[in-house]
Amino acid sequence: MPADVLILATRNEGKLRELARILGSHTKLVGLDAFPGAPDVPETGATFEANALLKARAIANYTKMPAVADDSGLCVDALNGMPGVLSARWAGRHGDDHANLELVLAQVADVPDARLGARFVAAAALVVPKGAEPEIETVVTGEVKGRLIRVPRGSGGFGYDPIFQPDGFDLTTAEMTPEAKDAISHRGRAFRALAPFIQGRLS
Amino acid sequence: MPADVLILATRNEGKLRELARILGSHTKLVGLDAFPGAPDVPETGATFEANALLKARAIANYTKMPAVADDSGLCVDALNGMPGVLSARWAGRHGDDHANLELVLAQVADVPDARLGARFVAAAALVVPKGAEPEIETVVTGEVKGRLIRVPRGSGGFGYDPIFQPDGFDLTTAEMTPEAKDAISHRGRAFRALAPFIQGRLS
Repeated sequence: MPADVLILATRNEGKLRELARILGSHTKLVGLDAFPGAPDVPETGATFEANALLKARAIANYTKMPAVADDSGLCVDALNGMPGVLSARWAGRHGDDHANLELVLAQVADVPDARLGARFVAAAALVVPKGAEPEIETVVTGEVKGRLIRVPRGSGGFGYDPIFQPDGFDLTTAEMTPEAKDAISHRGRAFRALAPFIQGRLS
Repeated sequence: MPADVLILATRNEGKLRELARILGSHTKLVGLDAFPGAPDVPETGATFEANALLKARAIANYTKMPAVADDSGLCVDALNGMPGVLSARWAGRHGDDHANLELVLAQVADVPDARLGARFVAAAALVVPKGAEPEIETVVTGEVKGRLIRVPRGSGGFGYDPIFQPDGFDLTTAEMTPEAKDAISHRGRAFRALAPFIQGRLS
């Protein structure tokens, strides 16, 4: 095994590949599939930062290795910044992307176009354990501003991508290539902002 | 007909009775049932105040008589103050009280009890037309603070009443008598705050 091993608190292959691209080949990135007994951490924080830290702490404590976790969501102006930390369970059940997206569209059906501003926000946290206690905690955020469209477009991405059009683009994030989306995305920005901390603290 | 006639922009008998109790017998209160052709005003405002004014203006313009309208909703801390102006259509369809209430409960299922603070807010607007143009516009708000409970209780009231417990009470607003609820309710407070303006401007 290489000297620098980092756990990414996810079972999502896409996130693993994205962070691996950003960190380069110095760091060996391992997902939660390698830890079947890892705890499922309830996302009970009031902010993306709090949830990312909750997850990274739990996984660092469990694995005794440096861990990165992220939390992200869609913040709609006309919904006072919600779904926010509740993005994944907005329609009531966890992870029903289609129901979540359709609910947001129904909620803003009578909202004038001028108030359809929205942004995707991601927080990424690094926790490096030392002995039993977490020793170093870093959390950063990234965001991408844009607006909702009322009719979904595109089959890439996931979640709310088909109804989100970033400022300066005529495409939704579901119509972009993965590379184009990474370049401007909230999670891409958060992971890139965290990369120097990871590289500095693992070496 | 009495000299003082006021249109209340509602077809809801309960609201008519509540405002009539507050205003006393000097004012003849007429609901929208008396105006079958009155416009249905879309509630597109970003605030309760804006929506109450939109409705009162539209009805005053249509009837050429002084009009009162209200808008109200539930503001949940953990939802950044939403459902707010979208309270009546939170689950996607307008007026499905049961679906709206169940959706809020599902959204906050993982939210710790300490963040279940909530308040009911109402805005009440008076528009007195003079000729073709609205001449006097007054809008006031009332609120009642409390918290959400996770299991609905009570069969009175409507909307989110079964999951809202006002501060200082062990009952939900759906478990209170109509009179007890009026005494502390957001709409009761807003209507009472508006009453002196109504009495002063209709005389």
